[in-house]
Amino acid sequence: MTKSDNNVGEDDIVTPWTVESKSDAGIDYDKLIVRFGCSAIDDQLINRVATLTKGSVHHLLERQIFFSHRELNQILDRYEKGLPFYLYTGRGPSSEALHLGHLIPFIFTKWLQEMFDVPLVIQLTEDEKFYWKNLSLDEAQKLAISNAKDIIALGFDISKTFIFYDTKFMSECPAFLDNIEEIDKKISYNQVKGIFGFDGNQNLGQTQFPAVQAAPSFSSSFPFIFGKKKDIPCLIPCAIDQDPYFRMTRDVAPRLKLPKPSLIHSKFLPALKGAVTKASASDSSTAIFLSDTPEQIAQKINLNSLDGGGDCEKDVSFQYLRFFMEDGKRLEEIREKYSNGSLPVDTIRAELIKIVTKIVIDHQTRLKEITDDIVHEFMKPRKLKFQF
Amino acid sequence: MTKSDNNVGEDDIVTPWTVESKSDAGIDYDKLIVRFGCSAIDDQLINRVATLTKGSVHHLLERQIFFSHRELNQILDRYEKGLPFYLYTGRGPSSEALHLGHLIPFIFTKWLQEMFDVPLVIQLTEDEKFYWKNLSLDEAQKLAISNAKDIIALGFDISKTFIFYDTKFMSECPAFLDNIEEIDKKISYNQVKGIFGFDGNQNLGQTQFPAVQAAPSFSSSFPFIFGKKKDIPCLIPCAIDQDPYFRMTRDVAPRLKLPKPSLIHSKFLPALKGAVTKASASDSSTAIFLSDTPEQIAQKINLNSLDGGGDCEKDVSFQYLRFFMEDGKRLEEIREKYSNGSLPVDTIRAELIKIVTKIVIDHQTRLKEITDDIVHEFMKPRKLKFQF
Repeated sequence: MTKSDNNVGEDDIVTPWTVESKSDAGIDYDKLIVRFGCSAIDDQLINRVATLTKGSVHHLLERQIFFSHRELNQILDRYEKGLPFYLYTGRGPSSEALHLGHLIPFIFTKWLQEMFDVPLVIQLTEDEKFYWKNLSLDEAQKLAISNAKDIIALGFDISKTFIFYDTKFMSECPAFLDNIEEIDKKISYNQVKGIFGFDGNQNLGQTQFPAVQAAPSFSSSFPFIFGKKKDIPCLIPCAIDQDPYFRMTRDVAPRLKLPKPSLIHSKFLPALKGAVTKASASDSSTAIFLSDTPEQIAQKINLNSLDGGGDCEKDVSFQYLRFFMEDGKRLEEIREKYSNGSLPVDTIRAELIKIVTKIVIDHQTRLKEITDDIVHEFMKPRKLKFQF
Repeated sequence: MTKSDNNVGEDDIVTPWTVESKSDAGIDYDKLIVRFGCSAIDDQLINRVATLTKGSVHHLLERQIFFSHRELNQILDRYEKGLPFYLYTGRGPSSEALHLGHLIPFIFTKWLQEMFDVPLVIQLTEDEKFYWKNLSLDEAQKLAISNAKDIIALGFDISKTFIFYDTKFMSECPAFLDNIEEIDKKISYNQVKGIFGFDGNQNLGQTQFPAVQAAPSFSSSFPFIFGKKKDIPCLIPCAIDQDPYFRMTRDVAPRLKLPKPSLIHSKFLPALKGAVTKASASDSSTAIFLSDTPEQIAQKINLNSLDGGGDCEKDVSFQYLRFFMEDGKRLEEIREKYSNGSLPVDTIRAELIKIVTKIVIDHQTRLKEITDDIVHEFMKPRKLKFQF
């Protein structure tokens, strides 16, 4: 829908609204790091995390699916010194059920929360989807609640986690609305135009939305969690396409005398049809949903997943194993054998079907336990188990 | 601060932020009616109002200080048929006390409410002032409450009147926030750019603010007053510089399947120094404030009010008498004598000082009775005395 200034003369388009690569191997993430001005996650940084987590490194980090960051070191410095930080992530509720791609930031965020024992706020941007899609506010709010159930079913600890959707939280928490307005005052239209590639045809909601996504980056938006502490920074795990919002937030933070958020960025889970684009909720054949049946999962993987013909970088089933197969040794074995032609794509697909089916079935079992009351409890502005 | 497309090639600048005429006689209001595409208030319309109000016509209407409208007839049609409507007016709280110019829409609105016996909502746009001025949100909110006291002191009936300021009301009333978001979705940046002459340097709050001023035009923003009735139209008495907001609102209303607001526009109370500009809260020597002492009033009028040298159109004291002297016969007598040189400007000034001092002193007396509790009651979202 929009073409960012950042993309002029580049092949890959990566904005919050469009992810498109000209290459079958997908986005050139090294180029993206340079273009966005963020930093690569290298072995040294992974080792530093490993030291702090007593040897445990999530495979999404070890395999550099979380591949890029902004000032992650500052958060780790604070952790070493015993100073607090919090986690902030989110989702734009555009479909009733999440797909596998949506899980990535949440799986990783959950691991971070368990390792570092910190508060987590999860923003559901139903207003964003209302502004961009042919959805009523009411429909968008229902999707937000439905998505919250999926997120809760991943096993987040209610004593450490607050989930909200924007319009409801604006009504509930004047401090959140105040922060949005403070941000609104500090950013000009020309600035969002430059960052997001707006061309003037965007509606006023779209134009102003970046301030809404920025506001949870500041602890002062959550007085019921952080009391009067306005200087507690956050770490934001998210897919790299969300980075423009937080580049803007980091730009505005000093002008509000508030700390800049740190970020850790993931690559995209490719669409089943190939890494030219990311898995999308808008086209159900390109993505596996947490609501799919085992038959649908097998069918989608067998019929729709791009066959790399021995090229692991192109083979979508192999790429999916990198995201979801925890056993690193087995993954390496598959990589070798598939690359030298001694393992057919059907075997990779069968392994993937087994793993994904288990993830989805286990998820559906847990989801059944998530009542409206539990969602309501997660969404209640309240003190978490942390003292500030 | 901005130059509207509407003003290109014109001498007078009339936007919500700037009112400036090149002529000593002030704004050319006839030209403005053509340029804005509104309708002049003629004798026929004044007579129609007189019929409905059983002969009473406020001098601000009789003297065509309220000079222009949009579909006022539709509101009068409804009144004749016994169908409901409501009044909506407002104020941007940029100073602690109101000045005489600010009174005009409120005096007239009060009269309309008394004549037609309808609900009135008064919006205080402290967020607007926060976005445009060097004010904190907290300071702007305090000005809003202070201004509310002045407004209440004018004698509005609490059983028929609801006063609110934006950030508080957004937190209190999800329906108001929903309407703002619905409007946000229907208007593009390019549209507000055209209507308000934005050049891209406006901050996001300024860019999006037109939706906030539009929202109270719809009865669905006030479910506690109107229940589920979304189709009750409003009449907006305001100075003509606010018209761009409501041109935009009237444009967006059909797309939201909501009724267009009707308007009745006033001319500006001139600055004491001359009608080149309107009385402004930013320059205390150009305006008489409701907080001024009798000495200050006399001094401002005697020293600062432009002497027309027998020209009633230029003489600011005479112009002020047109706004504030209720006795039409005496006003006409003064006009004649001043024009033919038989009445010195000092006499006009003395009459004006007497009238204005009484208005201000009476106001100050009533203001003393307005406690924080009373303000709080006016600002509580609640059912008014009307059934819908």
